[in-house]
Amino acid sequence: MSVIYERVALIGLGLIASSMFWAIKRSGLAGEVTGYARSAETRDTARRIGLCDRVCDTAAEAVAGADLVVLCVPVGAMGQVAAEIAPHLAAGATVSDVGSVKAAVIQAVGPHLPDNVHFVPAHPLAGTEHSGPESGFATLFDNRWCLLVPVEGTDPDAVVRLGRFWQEMGANVDTMEADHHDLVLAVTSHAPHLIAYTMVGVADDLRRVTDSEVIKYSAAGFRDFTRIAASDPTMWRDVFLTNKEATLEILGRFTEELFALQRAIRTGDGAHLHDYFTRTRAIRRGIIEAGQDTDAPDFGRAKAVR
Amino acid sequence: MSVIYERVALIGLGLIASSMFWAIKRSGLAGEVTGYARSAETRDTARRIGLCDRVCDTAAEAVAGADLVVLCVPVGAMGQVAAEIAPHLAAGATVSDVGSVKAAVIQAVGPHLPDNVHFVPAHPLAGTEHSGPESGFATLFDNRWCLLVPVEGTDPDAVVRLGRFWQEMGANVDTMEADHHDLVLAVTSHAPHLIAYTMVGVADDLRRVTDSEVIKYSAAGFRDFTRIAASDPTMWRDVFLTNKEATLEILGRFTEELFALQRAIRTGDGAHLHDYFTRTRAIRRGIIEAGQDTDAPDFGRAKAVR
Repeated sequence: MSVIYERVALIGLGLIASSMFWAIKRSGLAGEVTGYARSAETRDTARRIGLCDRVCDTAAEAVAGADLVVLCVPVGAMGQVAAEIAPHLAAGATVSDVGSVKAAVIQAVGPHLPDNVHFVPAHPLAGTEHSGPESGFATLFDNRWCLLVPVEGTDPDAVVRLGRFWQEMGANVDTMEADHHDLVLAVTSHAPHLIAYTMVGVADDLRRVTDSEVIKYSAAGFRDFTRIAASDPTMWRDVFLTNKEATLEILGRFTEELFALQRAIRTGDGAHLHDYFTRTRAIRRGIIEAGQDTDAPDFGRAKAVR
Repeated sequence: MSVIYERVALIGLGLIASSMFWAIKRSGLAGEVTGYARSAETRDTARRIGLCDRVCDTAAEAVAGADLVVLCVPVGAMGQVAAEIAPHLAAGATVSDVGSVKAAVIQAVGPHLPDNVHFVPAHPLAGTEHSGPESGFATLFDNRWCLLVPVEGTDPDAVVRLGRFWQEMGANVDTMEADHHDLVLAVTSHAPHLIAYTMVGVADDLRRVTDSEVIKYSAAGFRDFTRIAASDPTMWRDVFLTNKEATLEILGRFTEELFALQRAIRTGDGAHLHDYFTRTRAIRRGIIEAGQDTDAPDFGRAKAVR
């Protein structure tokens, strides 16, 4: 138990904020955690389940006296929230966020913040297909990466302190430059999500293949796409709108490659297909060796589902 | 324990055949199970781990006297194997397979078989990203679907008996017409696999985003694609080459839809994106209610991986 911040304010109380709260409590990382959500219903739920030591009815009240303020709202709402809390921030406080896009958040939030606070954007690479205040759990960040994207001129001590905070919540911490972050995430997250959404939408549209058949026979591969495509719609709308260029670039590469494989299928070029599929298998091995997934068949799900 | 076939011959000893063997043993469904694999190394492995009651050095020997013969080889090898075993089949035997494509298998296998055997093609919708004789396990088919695709004029008793056999191995059984099967599977399995292979290949190609970054930060969505894209290359090459038309048709629909979403991103049409993502979320709910996946966050993987 080592307190890193005296008072942490979580603005927005969804999956990430609620998991942060339980991870903070697990290791006693804060003296007090305040919370605020725009919707009264979410605040009621939070109070009912004991999420946050104190749930406030305004963002201003939540951030008052906090030495760490974390914006946990969809990327598209960050600017507005920053404008709302800026006059109420304590001098010397650190302001951070958990958005999946970094350049756009820095652009939206930065200009609102007073000079006497430290702005250290962050992005924990963790999540599930569930959302809302009741979906969080203390182990969400364990052995996941949290990327810190400090802007130029940030106090190094504030960065180190926030890094230690994330480590104590279970994460591995790295720093990265904003544009590079947005490109890496376009590859590892944003493009895969759009592709999964698309495939699930196509399946839903095909009237010759009834919905019930698609659902019944989903275990053949499709169901993994549906998990990804069940993620929070507002969060993902904002991700695509704010990481537009990198996402479109990766999707362009994807389409090019897909066309080459479609051509191989059409012309019956089995060697091309076999070579390609052999190469992709090696990447999976790397991910398991890096501790970022389980080697259990079917994610160990074979036993979990009856 | 109720014996359904006196002697079952498994031709090809990979993930599906080895899982069938353990499932047969779990419930005592066969008097004896013989096995054959083309590679001497696979046969040695099978003997070492006790896979099959008797591992034979030729397919002819394995099928001799069997009342059920199941072809468990890649779809592209089915015709050749059928030609090889045909002269050695017992009168009244049932011949089946486990291929992921049905019209092409029926076309390749059917002409070789003598009139005095029953041909009942089948497709268990179950698998993992692992392959080979050591990857099988008895519970692979539990609560998964097995589709029987009997050709016209098949003896109904042979179909019912094979259906009972699959049910006793844990599966739910349905029958379907071959072309419809190939279209449904193009949606639920073949197109998703090609898309996953493509995305993983794109990530591997991008030199600006190093391999180690893609692997390190894979948990953000990409790793689910890598699991699918780690499936057996030979099996999948054959699937695409033999279910060409349906796969290309679904990929065409997919590309069309992807372009519409890319356009929405480019033009900043947030409402279109939000509506689309909300619709796809409902499909996930249906799959969980149908018992085809777990509702545990992240497939329950959050706890499995440390």
